[in-house]
Amino acid sequence: METVRLDIENNCVVILDQTQLPGKEEYLNIRRIEDIYDAIYKLKVRGAPAIGVAAAMGIYVYANDINEEDTEIFLRKFSDGKKYLEASRPTARNLFWALERMEERAVENKELPVKNIKKVLCEEALKIQEEDIASCRKIGEYGLTLLKKNSGILTHCNAGALAASKYGTATAPIYIGNERGYNFKVFADETRPLLQGARLTAFELANEGIDVTLICDDMAGAVMKKGLIDAVIVGCDRVAANGDIANKIGTSMVAAAARRYKIPFYVCAPSSTIDLNTLEGKDIPIEERDGKEITHLWYEKPMAPEGIKTFNPAFDVTERDLITAIITEKGIFAPEKIKDALT
Amino acid sequence: METVRLDIENNCVVILDQTQLPGKEEYLNIRRIEDIYDAIYKLKVRGAPAIGVAAAMGIYVYANDINEEDTEIFLRKFSDGKKYLEASRPTARNLFWALERMEERAVENKELPVKNIKKVLCEEALKIQEEDIASCRKIGEYGLTLLKKNSGILTHCNAGALAASKYGTATAPIYIGNERGYNFKVFADETRPLLQGARLTAFELANEGIDVTLICDDMAGAVMKKGLIDAVIVGCDRVAANGDIANKIGTSMVAAAARRYKIPFYVCAPSSTIDLNTLEGKDIPIEERDGKEITHLWYEKPMAPEGIKTFNPAFDVTERDLITAIITEKGIFAPEKIKDALT
Repeated sequence: METVRLDIENNCVVILDQTQLPGKEEYLNIRRIEDIYDAIYKLKVRGAPAIGVAAAMGIYVYANDINEEDTEIFLRKFSDGKKYLEASRPTARNLFWALERMEERAVENKELPVKNIKKVLCEEALKIQEEDIASCRKIGEYGLTLLKKNSGILTHCNAGALAASKYGTATAPIYIGNERGYNFKVFADETRPLLQGARLTAFELANEGIDVTLICDDMAGAVMKKGLIDAVIVGCDRVAANGDIANKIGTSMVAAAARRYKIPFYVCAPSSTIDLNTLEGKDIPIEERDGKEITHLWYEKPMAPEGIKTFNPAFDVTERDLITAIITEKGIFAPEKIKDALT
Repeated sequence: METVRLDIENNCVVILDQTQLPGKEEYLNIRRIEDIYDAIYKLKVRGAPAIGVAAAMGIYVYANDINEEDTEIFLRKFSDGKKYLEASRPTARNLFWALERMEERAVENKELPVKNIKKVLCEEALKIQEEDIASCRKIGEYGLTLLKKNSGILTHCNAGALAASKYGTATAPIYIGNERGYNFKVFADETRPLLQGARLTAFELANEGIDVTLICDDMAGAVMKKGLIDAVIVGCDRVAANGDIANKIGTSMVAAAARRYKIPFYVCAPSSTIDLNTLEGKDIPIEERDGKEITHLWYEKPMAPEGIKTFNPAFDVTERDLITAIITEKGIFAPEKIKDALT
């Protein structure tokens, strides 16, 4: 299973449609920028690092289709496409980071013919993905130093291979530990409303033969209290400069429960997730989504009274005092020292 | 809507089948003790006080059908039925409390002809329900003294009119406040896996014209952090002698989040929920239910990978240090003083 891939020959991004998992493995060949936007907005591709990779590949495919010899006009059209894609989701830092990086590369090379700028963009998109794979591996190695064999590990949402390249972020220590016989017992929160924990995390870990138990989000505290959890590991959509983080809705409740039961709470994130322009967690824009995600299972069967009012934030902020450490590809940092990961 | 009712003429218990709500209002006429057991086990009737009332009425209907003149044999059969019903669910105190109270009344009157014992049992079952209504009203009056007008209130699961008689427990201050123009803004956790918050609480509060917003369980912390919640109010399945409580799974996570955001956390329970024989929360038996409740929406559509391992505890324990006060029909108690509610 490959989450996102660039098909250079056909100039398209190949995306595994995660909204269909685990029932169906369907790959989408996406070329139009409107369809890239749609794939990100509808969570066909999701998880901060994977969104970054998909956006980089998407903006390249779009740029490659700009039929224009004039560099200035090309760059203006590129910039329009970038702004358009930036509006697809507001919270994950990596979306903006990847698009900014692509634009910088284009602008740096504005003296080249458009054809050559396109080549640079193609290489950059592939490089972003390669770096993501390497980062995840390093996050896994660093994370594993914090874990003991036979540990119980709880995770929320999916920060797995489906959310990033190959190892995932929160799952990287689990996958690498599994290769080395660590025999972890993983508990996966189902993660309402869209069930990324049930549909994606439980699915990908079980596929790798890892011992995984699915629970509802409201059971995490009971599992901790029972003594089954030695560490909580989650991914991250944005790290603010002060070390507060935004991650999937519910993360802050898991962190509060972990504190209550004196369980370490680790956040895994490539340094591309860190946003020094966001000073504190309260400055991170939080996406609010359609209430139908709550009231109807996959927009089909009603699970609640008709017309009921809802509130559906997709992320929440976990303050740094609840975080034991942030694990990046540059090493393990106390949240208040996270700026050091960028130096 | 009437949750549970005794139909004396037809010797049956009339139960609103809550598993069908909010889609369908179906009333079941139940006479066989196996069907009472089934209705409790399958959550057709649920909520600690309502289970107590249904069990009292159920054991009476069963007793009334015992075709026996010999008091000793009658009482032995009664006792068999009581033991059978006690096995229907393990956590809610009120089930055992109601059945014990019914048996005591039967034994106290063992000198009477069987016919008259049956009459005593009928009166006792009706009395248990009347007392429940009066208790809920008093809980509401006491609870309301702790709340300000225009408050935001969060509740988990359903401790509403559908879980008890008429006012509910956790909802009693809300209903009475609503009568008096308190203009509360209620947030209802959906309460996975069986969605009692979405299907029942949101449903019954909206039906009464109360401002209610449905959220997923993992959103409660975010709503608190946003400053929308002034008090958390939940029901309770059992209060241990030391003031720890068991309530629907997830309650302890809500309590930990409330502590984090310095929001008072109130537990509403009639004194029949207090069990002095259970010394601490850890001594309360916690029901574990079929994992299919997690993996399949109402045993139909799969929401998770096939064959995935699950853990499905139906309740959890909230320790007394997280509880601001326990509100009973006898008054408001600090959890460590809860024994005083029985004196």
